[in-house]
Amino acid sequence: MATHEFRPTQYHNTLGWHDPVLEIDPGDTVLTTTVDARGQDHEGQRVTQRGNPQTGPFYVRGAELGDALVVTLDELIPSRSWGFTACQVAPNVLDPGYRPTFEDDLSACPTFDGVPFFRWAVDVAAGTAHLAEPEGALSKLKLPLDPMVGCFGVAPAGGQAISTATSSTHGGNMDYRGFRQGTKVYFPVFAPGALFHIGDGHAVQGDGEIVGTGIEVPFDVRFTVDLVKDSSVSWPRAVDATWLMAVGNARPLDQCVQHATTEMLTWLQRDFGLDARTAHQLLGQAVSYDVGNIFDPAYTMVCKVRRDHVEALR
Amino acid sequence: MATHEFRPTQYHNTLGWHDPVLEIDPGDTVLTTTVDARGQDHEGQRVTQRGNPQTGPFYVRGAELGDALVVTLDELIPSRSWGFTACQVAPNVLDPGYRPTFEDDLSACPTFDGVPFFRWAVDVAAGTAHLAEPEGALSKLKLPLDPMVGCFGVAPAGGQAISTATSSTHGGNMDYRGFRQGTKVYFPVFAPGALFHIGDGHAVQGDGEIVGTGIEVPFDVRFTVDLVKDSSVSWPRAVDATWLMAVGNARPLDQCVQHATTEMLTWLQRDFGLDARTAHQLLGQAVSYDVGNIFDPAYTMVCKVRRDHVEALR
Amino acid sequence: MATHEFRPTQYHNTLGWHDPVLEIDPGDTVLTTTVDARGQDHEGQRVTQRGNPQTGPFYVRGAELGDALVVTLDELIPSRSWGFTACQVAPNVLDPGYRPTFEDDLSACPTFDGVPFFRWAVDVAAGTAHLAEPEGALSKLKLPLDPMVGCFGVAPAGGQAISTATSSTHGGNMDYRGFRQGTKVYFPVFAPGALFHIGDGHAVQGDGEIVGTGIEVPFDVRFTVDLVKDSSVSWPRAVDATWLMAVGNARPLDQCVQHATTEMLTWLQRDFGLDARTAHQLLGQAVSYDVGNIFDPAYTMVCKVRRDHVEALR
Amino acid sequence: MATHEFRPTQYHNTLGWHDPVLEIDPGDTVLTTTVDARGQDHEGQRVTQRGNPQTGPFYVRGAELGDALVVTLDELIPSRSWGFTACQVAPNVLDPGYRPTFEDDLSACPTFDGVPFFRWAVDVAAGTAHLAEPEGALSKLKLPLDPMVGCFGVAPAGGQAISTATSSTHGGNMDYRGFRQGTKVYFPVFAPGALFHIGDGHAVQGDGEIVGTGIEVPFDVRFTVDLVKDSSVSWPRAVDATWLMAVGNARPLDQCVQHATTEMLTWLQRDFGLDARTAHQLLGQAVSYDVGNIFDPAYTMVCKVRRDHVEALR
Repeated sequence: MATHEFRPTQYHNTLGWHDPVLEIDPGDTVLTTTVDARGQDHEGQRVTQRGNPQTGPFYVRGAELGDALVVTLDELIPSRSWGFTACQVAPNVLDPGYRPTFEDDLSACPTFDGVPFFRWAVDVAAGTAHLAEPEGALSKLKLPLDPMVGCFGVAPAGGQAISTATSSTHGGNMDYRGFRQGTKVYFPVFAPGALFHIGDGHAVQGDGEIVGTGIEVPFDVRFTVDLVKDSSVSWPRAVDATWLMAVGNARPLDQCVQHATTEMLTWLQRDFGLDARTAHQLLGQAVSYDVGNIFDPAYTMVCKVRRDHVEALR
Repeated sequence: MATHEFRPTQYHNTLGWHDPVLEIDPGDTVLTTTVDARGQDHEGQRVTQRGNPQTGPFYVRGAELGDALVVTLDELIPSRSWGFTACQVAPNVLDPGYRPTFEDDLSACPTFDGVPFFRWAVDVAAGTAHLAEPEGALSKLKLPLDPMVGCFGVAPAGGQAISTATSSTHGGNMDYRGFRQGTKVYFPVFAPGALFHIGDGHAVQGDGEIVGTGIEVPFDVRFTVDLVKDSSVSWPRAVDATWLMAVGNARPLDQCVQHATTEMLTWLQRDFGLDARTAHQLLGQAVSYDVGNIFDPAYTMVCKVRRDHVEALR
Repeated sequence: MATHEFRPTQYHNTLGWHDPVLEIDPGDTVLTTTVDARGQDHEGQRVTQRGNPQTGPFYVRGAELGDALVVTLDELIPSRSWGFTACQVAPNVLDPGYRPTFEDDLSACPTFDGVPFFRWAVDVAAGTAHLAEPEGALSKLKLPLDPMVGCFGVAPAGGQAISTATSSTHGGNMDYRGFRQGTKVYFPVFAPGALFHIGDGHAVQGDGEIVGTGIEVPFDVRFTVDLVKDSSVSWPRAVDATWLMAVGNARPLDQCVQHATTEMLTWLQRDFGLDARTAHQLLGQAVSYDVGNIFDPAYTMVCKVRRDHVEALR
Repeated sequence: MATHEFRPTQYHNTLGWHDPVLEIDPGDTVLTTTVDARGQDHEGQRVTQRGNPQTGPFYVRGAELGDALVVTLDELIPSRSWGFTACQVAPNVLDPGYRPTFEDDLSACPTFDGVPFFRWAVDVAAGTAHLAEPEGALSKLKLPLDPMVGCFGVAPAGGQAISTATSSTHGGNMDYRGFRQGTKVYFPVFAPGALFHIGDGHAVQGDGEIVGTGIEVPFDVRFTVDLVKDSSVSWPRAVDATWLMAVGNARPLDQCVQHATTEMLTWLQRDFGLDARTAHQLLGQAVSYDVGNIFDPAYTMVCKVRRDHVEALR
């Protein structure tokens, strides 16, 4: 039950079987930091290359193929007073051929670091975000902070190293708002030690990350790890105070639905002991679905049921 | 502002350019009834053939191509003390090749009317639904009623008559939980008089209608119609106390997202006067997506933004 | 075995349960004409509204729900010395956000009838098509004629009337190059008399109809009908000298593949008597797939096997 | 222009930035061998683990990010007198819920190496394949050999290592019948030296590899490499005597079409000098599409145009 403080000095742009930066035990807690999606730290210094750079990987002793790594997101605190967002809804979520009226005039969009971006003030004390510079009507928009992890996960199967731009069974760039402080996340273990990576903090994000960014920030992170031996976990799962969540990452969204719903049925039957009929009927009349990212090469969809419904049925 | 009471004696299994059952004016209110998805009325009598039979169509005077029909769902009251649900999560939302363990033993599933179905008690006074007959663990599940319309809409473009099994720009079988009492719904008008149809009530439904049914009931319905002339509405839209909702119906879900998001951008810019940059940025950091049905030939997805966010930006 | 000559005076823009223009018997042959996709006849006169207007429907005596209508395309002859094509590959078949370099300068594209279109000379005697007016490098392109039917089929299930823009189990706008002269096509019968419609001739077409048109022409058509009673046909099928073809119409293409492959397995087992193992193994090592349209609301894909392979296995 | 003979002693189950087994120059030819998809060599010995093991990677001197690696498949010769195939069309290409009638009785399917597989005799001299053991009607099926490479490509972008089960811009498990002897293939270069991998030979394969295998064999391979500096190649391309082919790998197939068609437009305009209008019009009336695999995590589709058409237009 040790607590480790870890300062990263290098980052990875893939989730892979990289040399671990720290070995920890199940039950241990780690305090560390992440840089933002463009490799900038809490002072705004570019310390590594862009593309959701990951802190880690952390080696969890005893983790082996067939287990599940459990990561509780104890604290996710934006460590900088500003974040940035991209300007334009991505063409892949708009009708083919649709053209935003402003796209030929990107001078109309503020630039940041030479790229068209908005800069947002992130006020952790007040719990809100708003545009950092006056900008017409948009200046009136004040959004409640809801910090979440965009990209995290374990080393993927079979020695693969997979870009932090995408996601699969190992997690990765899922951009799901449910991965917020307090959530407990389960990943299937493919590599010895699981090799946990974390990065890409968002202070706020709309569903789907449809402009390609949340409000991108570095984080001070505290997380605690645990293991489930011989687990039924095939896709990322998560639990918060209210929900059981099963995650599917793929394209099209229809396939995300298939993975997430199948994983939920397995979870309800294998781990909660519901019989098949009960599990199907519960989902039929009480399931919810959330959208993770619909911007990246693999999209993300989440199949959810209320914990109190499941508890009532055991 | 008349109120019409209409007792249906026949029903349609397509939304089409059918002879109207009643002519009404914008501002008028209609009290009527719908049968359940299998054509059974408030007494459980089979009065028409199965397949989401529709009451109507209602001809709204003055409605013509290019307008939007506005339908406020004033009251949706289950008119029978029981409903039914199908038993099994549909194979199209599960991994290809996945097999429920009980499917070879449908004797394990209760039958109703000769078909494997569960029968639910629908208690309008208590506001809950639960299984009508004792059935193991499932009997412990008590769900809050949340009545909604599964299938409704207007006559589709170009003289088409489209099955109540599916949906498109004209509405149809969208099975979206947001179409509940109090919601105001906008449909693009394609036919003279709009020709509004309504049916397929659900007392409760999980997202996606993934077993192929909600808790299927007949409804006592009260709705009020209005018109927007020369409207920008291309896909169904809805407004409730909290949300603006734009609906896309298609396959795969990725295409629903494209239709719904494009419709929302149009709505924000054309009807609420936001400039393009503001509309894109709002969606980027504050959009939500809901899932309508993922069971029917066309799936349904909804792009939502909070009304207070939009109001703050005007 | 009568031969009927039929001159159309009206056309339909839906495939539906319309009043038949002619009643014929199985075995009968019909000589008739079709107009082009924009409603223009052999003299270039606009005689009806645009959108793949259909000649028919023809009522085939004895056809009823559960049968298959067999239509042999005896002759498909372009009846005008010119056709037209649209200019630009559709955005739905290009990467989201990709922009053709010429789209802002449509003055660079010839217009025809006020719309940007190319006009092609269709030389039936020579069997070729080439641009009608000199037009740079494009003038050097001479393509062999390969006349085919873009849109045809029967009245769809359940009293529906479905736009000629799209397709489903009843046929419709499939734009498949295999529907050429000599091909025998099977449609499932949904309406009494089957109600066969035909239109939308193409003198030449690339796979997918990705600019939204072939070289659009009116046709002189000769076809012969027959019936299969109590048929296993669920989706359009076709037979030519070499191939058995099963057609799936849907979105995305993955679903077309599912419909077409399942239909082919049914065909091989139910109609040709192959056992399941043999049918699966044959497809595994000898199947071919063709692309119909990838432009319309429903796409089309075709699953093919060689007739000689199947014959060898019986 | 050296010729290298290389005997592999180890294999990779990912395409990645692995240590090269040989350094070669542009213009050089390599003679080597591949094992079959289950890691068995020309004598049927299991020499490495299953999953399309790759020979290589080969480091091509001078290759760097932004170039294209050109690989001519000079010779692809099955090096064993038998191959194997799986038994059953995959559920992902069949209608959801469809069940082959034999799947509950896999005893009805021959086993090989403990797994249900058919064993085929591969007769290179005769140029045919047929079942190795008598097996009812199937024994009558004799297929012409058409050897092709299932999985090959270069190290993917950004230090990734991607499973040989799937494919992307770097190539990988595309299972396209056009990758046969004589074809010249272009891959975008992401890593210094390109790092070319090759494996997974098929003696015969149906379109789509829909049972999950071709007739799986080890190969004697001869290939020649070259480089294009500062190339426009973003996705694999290929050229044979008749066709230009651009490959898209993704899901759903609709997205493969988008990648392949966009790549073809780029190719025609940037490398062949066609103006945009000519390129679009050529594709509209003369494009063809082929299906690569529709079994793997990423599907494959190919956009083709005839070389003589393109040459006529220059």
